[in-house]
Amino acid sequence: MTKHIYIYSPSSAIRDKAAFRRGVKRLQALGHEVEIDEAALSVHQRFAGDDATRLASIARAAASGADIALIARGGYGLTRILDAIPYKAIAKAIGRGTEFVGLSDFTALQSALLAKTGAVSWAGPAVGEDFGAEGGADDIMEACFDDLLSGQGEGTGWRMPARDAELKFKPVHGATLWGGNLCVLTSLLGTPYFPQVEKGVLFIEDVNEHPYRVERMLDQLRMAGVLARQRAIVFGQFTGMRKVPGYDRGFGFESVVDRLRHLLKVPVLTGLPFGHVPTKILLPVGAQVELAADGRDVFMVWGHRHAHDHHDHA
Amino acid sequence: MTKHIYIYSPSSAIRDKAAFRRGVKRLQALGHEVEIDEAALSVHQRFAGDDATRLASIARAAASGADIALIARGGYGLTRILDAIPYKAIAKAIGRGTEFVGLSDFTALQSALLAKTGAVSWAGPAVGEDFGAEGGADDIMEACFDDLLSGQGEGTGWRMPARDAELKFKPVHGATLWGGNLCVLTSLLGTPYFPQVEKGVLFIEDVNEHPYRVERMLDQLRMAGVLARQRAIVFGQFTGMRKVPGYDRGFGFESVVDRLRHLLKVPVLTGLPFGHVPTKILLPVGAQVELAADGRDVFMVWGHRHAHDHHDHA
Repeated sequence: MTKHIYIYSPSSAIRDKAAFRRGVKRLQALGHEVEIDEAALSVHQRFAGDDATRLASIARAAASGADIALIARGGYGLTRILDAIPYKAIAKAIGRGTEFVGLSDFTALQSALLAKTGAVSWAGPAVGEDFGAEGGADDIMEACFDDLLSGQGEGTGWRMPARDAELKFKPVHGATLWGGNLCVLTSLLGTPYFPQVEKGVLFIEDVNEHPYRVERMLDQLRMAGVLARQRAIVFGQFTGMRKVPGYDRGFGFESVVDRLRHLLKVPVLTGLPFGHVPTKILLPVGAQVELAADGRDVFMVWGHRHAHDHHDHA
Repeated sequence: MTKHIYIYSPSSAIRDKAAFRRGVKRLQALGHEVEIDEAALSVHQRFAGDDATRLASIARAAASGADIALIARGGYGLTRILDAIPYKAIAKAIGRGTEFVGLSDFTALQSALLAKTGAVSWAGPAVGEDFGAEGGADDIMEACFDDLLSGQGEGTGWRMPARDAELKFKPVHGATLWGGNLCVLTSLLGTPYFPQVEKGVLFIEDVNEHPYRVERMLDQLRMAGVLARQRAIVFGQFTGMRKVPGYDRGFGFESVVDRLRHLLKVPVLTGLPFGHVPTKILLPVGAQVELAADGRDVFMVWGHRHAHDHHDHA
């Protein structure tokens, strides 16, 4: 099943060129035709090219006709150019069968795209950190990526931590899945690029943030009324949390989750295998999903996600 | 000129007790009657007491009848309790002549107070970091504090960096001064606690943030329409910026300022002596100010700031 994968750099400059090359080779070894955008390795300050260069890369990805437009890496750069991203061209490309995949800073593009067009994109891997990981790409990530390529993926499942075994959760039907990186998502609040999703399933992840910063961002979403409008909040992986030894005294990720549960009527699930971790599933941002739990086991189903599922390039 | 100074801890627990004690002694040495809130040294997780304890401290500060209610320190804790702060009691206390002074996390209380009541509070020092600084409190900070206590302060002035010498700036009259810590202020955007100030003078400062995070926060305020509604943006001190050697490649504080100037018609001034630095002036958040510049020299005047200026406890 050879697919056409277009790699571009909408955010930070590639620092780890070896990882990038490993990622490209891995995708080729999986049998794919890999096309690398002409500016993928550009450098301007900390960015993968200046703003105009990165905007042109995004436009080329949308025009590529590829099966997958995959980010080289995340970092920082998309929030700067949200006013100029060609959302309609991306939505049209998605309608023609190009799936946009990425994470982290890419949350900005995905959220803005959802807000502006309603088009579905995928929270998923990046080339360098994921396909180019030292020691090899993660099996589960690759299996989920393959599901997307084959059009076979219709959902996912995971087991919540033991402390959530007693959680009561009523199934949710036909809710819009949205979210991504908490820091990037929160940085869109109050702007035209923040999706106005009612009765959705909001998933979040973050990396290298102190628990107090995670809490402050969640409080901002809560006090803005965003969380109460959802039907479920799903925590992905929060990694590299910078706690202060001897000072936080029990204030950590779990206290943040527990306090949120205390303040919200909306159910808060945890343990979603998505974030800045090797084992990540792919999630359709903007798609309608069903969400159910059986004890600690959670199931999310998105079925046939949009009209072009019949469209087969193979 | 003995004044009554009430010290309380609305945010993080005091870590540096020696600095706190030095600060209290310094205020006493200046001739003031210092009253320390019963929970000022409380510890709950990373907070100066649990939420109820800190809310009670704030209420006691408002009821104290002191000339100044001064925070022991900043940190984190106020955004958690914004829904429960006794804004009306604080505004009444301010009307009776108690000035509320603080910075950093205190920006949350000041902004919410302005949004909810319009009352004026002061961006200024904290006990530990400022009055208790090793090597002694800063002279300029103490002179500004004394101006507030004596009711003599009617404005301030500073010199912008040389690179701003060519800045054209038309004087601004009768604009509301607001702002504070950029990170805390931005974390209120979209919530009922973000002041809706039109044609104001917005000042900002921050500490230990990478320039890209400062830029992302400014972009959030910009894309939310907040910056374009102001008559001036004033940068205070941005300290401890965490740049990445060999990677940022010229992307830094100055590029953030220059880009903002390019994107905004609103004038952007810099060099305000306020932030996480020893030499800080006191600024009346919510007051009407005049702002003018003569080359690199900037003048901000707030005159008689509110009705109780005649009210003298001395």
